[in-house]
Amino acid sequence: MTALGPLPSGFEAALARARSAVEAELCRALAAEPGPVAEAMLYACEGGKGLRGFLVLEGARLHGLSEAQAIPAAAAIEALHAYSLIHDDLPCMDDDDLRRGRPTVHRAWDEATAVLAGDALQSLAFELVCQAGGSPEARLTLTLTLARAAGVAGMVGGQALDIAAETAVEPLTLEQITALQARKTGALITWSAAAGARLAGADPAPLVRYGDALGLAFQIADDLLDVEGSAEEVGKAVAKDAARGKATFVSLLGLAGAKARAQALVENACAALDVYGAEASTLREAARFVTARRK
Amino acid sequence: MTALGPLPSGFEAALARARSAVEAELCRALAAEPGPVAEAMLYACEGGKGLRGFLVLEGARLHGLSEAQAIPAAAAIEALHAYSLIHDDLPCMDDDDLRRGRPTVHRAWDEATAVLAGDALQSLAFELVCQAGGSPEARLTLTLTLARAAGVAGMVGGQALDIAAETAVEPLTLEQITALQARKTGALITWSAAAGARLAGADPAPLVRYGDALGLAFQIADDLLDVEGSAEEVGKAVAKDAARGKATFVSLLGLAGAKARAQALVENACAALDVYGAEASTLREAARFVTARRK
Repeated sequence: MTALGPLPSGFEAALARARSAVEAELCRALAAEPGPVAEAMLYACEGGKGLRGFLVLEGARLHGLSEAQAIPAAAAIEALHAYSLIHDDLPCMDDDDLRRGRPTVHRAWDEATAVLAGDALQSLAFELVCQAGGSPEARLTLTLTLARAAGVAGMVGGQALDIAAETAVEPLTLEQITALQARKTGALITWSAAAGARLAGADPAPLVRYGDALGLAFQIADDLLDVEGSAEEVGKAVAKDAARGKATFVSLLGLAGAKARAQALVENACAALDVYGAEASTLREAARFVTARRK
Repeated sequence: MTALGPLPSGFEAALARARSAVEAELCRALAAEPGPVAEAMLYACEGGKGLRGFLVLEGARLHGLSEAQAIPAAAAIEALHAYSLIHDDLPCMDDDDLRRGRPTVHRAWDEATAVLAGDALQSLAFELVCQAGGSPEARLTLTLTLARAAGVAGMVGGQALDIAAETAVEPLTLEQITALQARKTGALITWSAAAGARLAGADPAPLVRYGDALGLAFQIADDLLDVEGSAEEVGKAVAKDAARGKATFVSLLGLAGAKARAQALVENACAALDVYGAEASTLREAARFVTARRK
């Protein structure tokens, strides 16, 4: 008899459930469309952790919305995230061959298909988000905040700063890298966390604070994985940052300092949830998970 | 004393006015954002005809909306169009060096900036469109229809078919090329024409019929310019289709046949406007203009 592994916690079960609900929604949205671009879109949405979609569903649950009302927004953020990964991996960007343990889209198909699949996933994200449940005003706010989080003042702006940093003479300071990451990865994570409150027409401030802290902790964990993880575990190339001489939270704070900073952020994230009491325990677990993850 | 050239017609004056109002809105939207990506975004929005933005404003005027209510939607469609041109021109797509008489974005900057500027222009389009005037329900419908027209079932799907046609053994039939163009260029033109009716909560059907006919006439005129125009006049490379052995309306219908088909479509477009009476004369002029244009 083999020993049983640890049973899935509330968080892991909720994450798996969210991931499968979101994948079903994306399959449904793309089912009618034949051809390589739609296939590449679906391929790019598979195999991720599904953390952003989970955050949307969990935030919505905290505000009394049904899963059916929140699923379009959860699928939207996973589609948007998948688009950003496809374009990030392009030869003219990070030039990566491996993503989520599989060939990147431009390796599995070609560059033109990768550009188009990313473009169409962004459109799909907006097609989905404006179909979430909630009042029309709330749905418009959700759509507007997603567009801002994705655009040049948010994620794309962060990516542009990241590219500029690679050719800059001086490495980034801690303040600069924090600001960069708040846009590059933080904006969409914060949007995900706060989406349920926005859809319900409630004050998004506590979940915005939670998302801001979580997003930064997530990025520090990513930098730690780049140093400590193996490509097999992580599912993408590692040790790339040091090879490029790129400033990261680890290069600026050291391994122990980066771990301590991530831990402090997890505590901030959990504290922001106080207003929700015990109802938010799965989101607290999620915050602990992002710094403990191995991929 | 030199002879005066022809005075601007109602249409040309309205087009110029729409173009400058849309450019002002896009400048305003991007003014706060420093850096090369925001500069490239604005650069890509400059120098076009502004036909799509004009169609939005004119359709809105027909439905009693103010220019202020419609401008965000007009700016949105021009931002979306500019994104599609940037990505279309990339080396892995059409690999063009010239657009609107100037270097393409990836030539003036680099490929990474071109990918990001296109991506952020798509986000900006959705940021703008959901801020148009009108009821929340109408604004959501406008946003949803834009996302569908832009995505894999619309423009991007048409681009994918176009790429597939280049390596296909058999050239496209007239029916296939009509279906392809209805998605690649038609979907956004039809959206533009019908946007004002949708914002006003009115029946968009007449303007959809107008837009469908106009979009196809526009594409036939484009094919004619590729054969008959000079690069200097058109502002981009010409005679590319024949060089690639690509089926076009001209290769399938002949020069005279293509011109006759465009003319018939202009008449269909004008007939669709009958319900609007004399109020729609500028839109009728626009339909005649797209087939008479030299760029």
